[in-house]
Amino acid sequence: MLNEDFLLKSRISKELYHQVACKLPIVDYHNHLNPEAMASNKKFRNITELWIYDDQYKHRLMRIHGVEEQFITGNAPDYEKFLAWMKIFPKTIGNPLYHWSQIEIKYIFGSQINLFEDEPLAIWEACNKQLGEQGLGVIDILKKWNTEILSTSDDLLDDLQNHKAITDKKEDGISVFPSLRSDSVIAFQAPGFLKWLGRLEELTGTTVHNLSDYEEAIKLRLNYFQDAGCALSDHALDSSFTYKLPSRSEAIAIFKKRLNEEYLNERELTALKSYVFKFLGVEYGKRKLVMQLHIGAQRVTSSRLKAIASKFGGFATIGDTLNIQSLCEFLDDLECEQALPSTILYTLNAADNDRVATLTGSFTEEGVSGKIQFGPAWWFNDHYDGIVKQITAISSFGQLDTFIGMTSDSRSFLSLSRHYYFRRILCHLLGEWVEKGLLSDNFEILAALVTKVCYANAKHLIIAAN
Amino acid sequence: MLNEDFLLKSRISKELYHQVACKLPIVDYHNHLNPEAMASNKKFRNITELWIYDDQYKHRLMRIHGVEEQFITGNAPDYEKFLAWMKIFPKTIGNPLYHWSQIEIKYIFGSQINLFEDEPLAIWEACNKQLGEQGLGVIDILKKWNTEILSTSDDLLDDLQNHKAITDKKEDGISVFPSLRSDSVIAFQAPGFLKWLGRLEELTGTTVHNLSDYEEAIKLRLNYFQDAGCALSDHALDSSFTYKLPSRSEAIAIFKKRLNEEYLNERELTALKSYVFKFLGVEYGKRKLVMQLHIGAQRVTSSRLKAIASKFGGFATIGDTLNIQSLCEFLDDLECEQALPSTILYTLNAADNDRVATLTGSFTEEGVSGKIQFGPAWWFNDHYDGIVKQITAISSFGQLDTFIGMTSDSRSFLSLSRHYYFRRILCHLLGEWVEKGLLSDNFEILAALVTKVCYANAKHLIIAAN
Amino acid sequence: MLNEDFLLKSRISKELYHQVACKLPIVDYHNHLNPEAMASNKKFRNITELWIYDDQYKHRLMRIHGVEEQFITGNAPDYEKFLAWMKIFPKTIGNPLYHWSQIEIKYIFGSQINLFEDEPLAIWEACNKQLGEQGLGVIDILKKWNTEILSTSDDLLDDLQNHKAITDKKEDGISVFPSLRSDSVIAFQAPGFLKWLGRLEELTGTTVHNLSDYEEAIKLRLNYFQDAGCALSDHALDSSFTYKLPSRSEAIAIFKKRLNEEYLNERELTALKSYVFKFLGVEYGKRKLVMQLHIGAQRVTSSRLKAIASKFGGFATIGDTLNIQSLCEFLDDLECEQALPSTILYTLNAADNDRVATLTGSFTEEGVSGKIQFGPAWWFNDHYDGIVKQITAISSFGQLDTFIGMTSDSRSFLSLSRHYYFRRILCHLLGEWVEKGLLSDNFEILAALVTKVCYANAKHLIIAAN
Repeated sequence: MLNEDFLLKSRISKELYHQVACKLPIVDYHNHLNPEAMASNKKFRNITELWIYDDQYKHRLMRIHGVEEQFITGNAPDYEKFLAWMKIFPKTIGNPLYHWSQIEIKYIFGSQINLFEDEPLAIWEACNKQLGEQGLGVIDILKKWNTEILSTSDDLLDDLQNHKAITDKKEDGISVFPSLRSDSVIAFQAPGFLKWLGRLEELTGTTVHNLSDYEEAIKLRLNYFQDAGCALSDHALDSSFTYKLPSRSEAIAIFKKRLNEEYLNERELTALKSYVFKFLGVEYGKRKLVMQLHIGAQRVTSSRLKAIASKFGGFATIGDTLNIQSLCEFLDDLECEQALPSTILYTLNAADNDRVATLTGSFTEEGVSGKIQFGPAWWFNDHYDGIVKQITAISSFGQLDTFIGMTSDSRSFLSLSRHYYFRRILCHLLGEWVEKGLLSDNFEILAALVTKVCYANAKHLIIAAN
Repeated sequence: MLNEDFLLKSRISKELYHQVACKLPIVDYHNHLNPEAMASNKKFRNITELWIYDDQYKHRLMRIHGVEEQFITGNAPDYEKFLAWMKIFPKTIGNPLYHWSQIEIKYIFGSQINLFEDEPLAIWEACNKQLGEQGLGVIDILKKWNTEILSTSDDLLDDLQNHKAITDKKEDGISVFPSLRSDSVIAFQAPGFLKWLGRLEELTGTTVHNLSDYEEAIKLRLNYFQDAGCALSDHALDSSFTYKLPSRSEAIAIFKKRLNEEYLNERELTALKSYVFKFLGVEYGKRKLVMQLHIGAQRVTSSRLKAIASKFGGFATIGDTLNIQSLCEFLDDLECEQALPSTILYTLNAADNDRVATLTGSFTEEGVSGKIQFGPAWWFNDHYDGIVKQITAISSFGQLDTFIGMTSDSRSFLSLSRHYYFRRILCHLLGEWVEKGLLSDNFEILAALVTKVCYANAKHLIIAAN
Repeated sequence: MLNEDFLLKSRISKELYHQVACKLPIVDYHNHLNPEAMASNKKFRNITELWIYDDQYKHRLMRIHGVEEQFITGNAPDYEKFLAWMKIFPKTIGNPLYHWSQIEIKYIFGSQINLFEDEPLAIWEACNKQLGEQGLGVIDILKKWNTEILSTSDDLLDDLQNHKAITDKKEDGISVFPSLRSDSVIAFQAPGFLKWLGRLEELTGTTVHNLSDYEEAIKLRLNYFQDAGCALSDHALDSSFTYKLPSRSEAIAIFKKRLNEEYLNERELTALKSYVFKFLGVEYGKRKLVMQLHIGAQRVTSSRLKAIASKFGGFATIGDTLNIQSLCEFLDDLECEQALPSTILYTLNAADNDRVATLTGSFTEEGVSGKIQFGPAWWFNDHYDGIVKQITAISSFGQLDTFIGMTSDSRSFLSLSRHYYFRRILCHLLGEWVEKGLLSDNFEILAALVTKVCYANAKHLIIAAN
């Protein structure tokens, strides 16, 4: 099992981690945690429910090893699912799951549990003893992680009562803000779009006869999100993302066709999406909402796995490198209207790391530090090598000093572990740079840098938007 | 000259290599070795014939240094060709040839030969003394490499008697299986296609009037290959690879046009290729043949060099990143017919490493471990840095534990050296991970991992297919 | 502040740097230095004018930190601009500017100035004391860098008297040659093309009625450039670069349309550009001029920044990976006419490093060592990690031994610092390879290699072209 100095070899890295990084509260500005589970301080039947149910990363590795689906998402009893993972876990050497799993158990259940040497049954019982109706709930776990601010991912139509409830409960010291996942707003190709639109009309008490109505309804919900402390928005720009702005009259006509359930061809879809995407971007800019763009997933893979796993279930893979022309035109269009929001660019294809890191210098704003952010190593990249590469790219092509650091982007309450993983790697890397002679061995300077990247920059981003 | 601990710095890496990795037999599941030379235990006139003739990698470097072609593939005497390479060899610092050349000579001819300090003439004579009619033959060399299984690359029309002959000769302990290089089966654009088809008709005693006949003839040859122990197939998906499946009736019509020597446009060619490619994939799946896809070569470069060198002669370069949409659609089409074979994906463009490694989790099968494989660092990538990157990618984005390890992919009997190069790098890397604190210093666990990656996984793959 | 052994950790790396690399004169074969400033030995009012004015890299980082434009390129007094940079400089940890800035001050102004500990005012005064009318001028600075040969970047219409004047002044020991930036020659899309053409007609005393006239006028200027010692040409192949050669009659017709100010569509523009680009390539080949191709900039980003900064001002970002098919067809077309010049390929997108390094083996010429060069880490890539990656790629996929090493590519006379940065990294890397066991610890061999890469290969390239 990993010890105190896990990943930390140099003196300076140990000092930075133990004296600074590990003590900083967590600001997790993008995740998919369940607000209802937080509001109710949900309890867990057993370690399987907490550790495996919502962790599609573990599911994915079990499938690679040929584990039968019944032991992953199927009907097998929880203990057998636990055993299935415990059988695969030691084989995951070299993969971040090997580390994450250890951190998750150690931080929440204590270092008396040894995943390598204890009998599975003993681990099962020791963990379960700390769970159950009398045991650790979601809020207790969040406190163990030293959580200060969470920003969940919410659809425009979602109710945000739970966020307010948690944040208002001051004694826990945890603020939970919604963030707007806007994909459904421009999912004109989706069969369920009109149904979704109907709900929007209900919730906003409006009727959408045309594009202007649609824009007004969206604005009402944006108001509602901002009332609940929303500081960020989020879009998935999947592998084939293209931006091609039509005129307003064209957009109006295409939207009309959509309302009338007429067929939209590829060109019309791209045009309408581009138009409403730009409308949203301008709104974010005016409202000081941060815009997150998650770029480059390829979600067309195995039809079989897509049906088995949820749409987040790990069947996706890494798409083409980004359409830089489209991305730049989009950002420039927003800037030309004086409404470019602070933007976080995540890339799933690390072959684009340099490009995204460089783009942080291509759009800037006087008085704003770190206007365009290269988001942390995302999804499949969230491993030792991926984190090192992302930090190296943002440093080499941009500025480490303005970087907002890690976010978990996960559905599991145990995934806040990744902040500590990230922090160890950052401290290790800075220590390595000192040892290589790239940096001076100056604790104060490096401690200040660590504080900014692991905590202060992200907190400032959220506060600046609120 | 490299010593015993070449590339091995840490204690754990030395233990893993010397106690485990170096003792494992070689399973070389993809190469272009000449079966006839093996069946006849071919002897070599001199070191040039063995060391330089079939090694296009050496030719390529000599050309970069401006060596005249007569000393590479031309009419100069063998000794002068030897001298030409010996003059370039010390300049190859930083390139894998610098290491490979040393391993090749040391392992086969002994460490009394020093490529740096001995006179070229002395080296020439010392090596030649061990060659000639009474000296080392192909089989002797394969035994020196501790070869257990070889899988050559063979055209659908190739005779496979030599494979059987070698494998049947039990006392050598070497099994040589054919594997099917299927490019010619879908090379509808090739001027020689109809001639090739004529030979297929002869060999199978069929007449190909239409697509169904063609499919039947192919199946007969697949039977023949499987009778000879064929476990793998192989396709080159060059830089412009696109998959776009037509209907069967369209495919039938296009094939008819081809038989009639009518012109096929780009769209028709892609359609027909896609159709027959899918037919082959389904056959592989049903027959439990592994499917190898070599992705991303750019073969349109210098017309001059293409004419001089053979089509494998190093004039090629690295093409665009892979068409992930096409690749995923192809694999999904096979899976939808319950006929997705185990698949090895090789990428020539290492910018795709992450994508291919991630794809190993996007198609899986219950009960099959490592269904989709990220093949080892291929062709130009087969160097220290390329191997480290490939292992890091498969570990970080997939699973190292299920990886099938190295294959030589070469025409030279000395290129089995690359297994030992790979093994040293793997052991070094594991040792480095231990030193960095990424892994525990547990010899048994790491020894088991090394055994799987360097030997057992590849052997299991071939046996599972037989 | 960095010390003598900055970046050098191993014994061998220190020996290589201090005994060999740091003593070699500088051959800077591609930069944007101002010939007039050199001919007049221009003096500097203060450190801001020398250190910040022409350094768009510093401007870019200040903008990322939100510094107001008046303190970057605006009307603020020089001292305030100096203070603005001094405030940002310590925050640039991890970025090459952090190192470059230190090298620039230390090498030119001496190590008594400490950028971290001295008061800004004291630094301002100490530097300014060495500048001014009586102080260091451009030539003095070039001598401090130990400059031997410079190759500037010049338009076809530029006057080259200054180059001759400096070179003729033998006592300074500095040769300054023009190199031809040919972008304007094929900028048929530019609104100012006809005006440019008019100047060409004037300068050459010709009238351009058609494509042949144009070619003749270009040839006259090429003669003029060669008379001034021009050894290299240069083209920017931006992100969308495509090569599609038309017939001569088509090219003639399209050029005619351009002369007549008729609209050229995308296809015609590409055709005409391809045709004249090939014409230029053939001329370079016949005249033994080296052809530099700077591949992959994305210059469509922020309209706002483009207006503020100059066209070199850092608003650009990294474009798509290269069009390898187009590039190969172009090089092959030249080779087919026996007129392929020696070529240096620079890539802005390091995801292409492997491809460009591999391409160095796809076109070769008997008797020419290093015919196709992978140019050094370019523009945004010119940092520690980028340099390491470029050297690793050229070594692994090509030959380090034939590499022409660093060039500054800058507008600032302080940017020759980058040669020393590069040399330290090269020596460090070789030392690391020795420590890893990849190379023998042989000083003579490595010293010879360092000399070739840092000096001799580049000098030979220029001399071979003269």
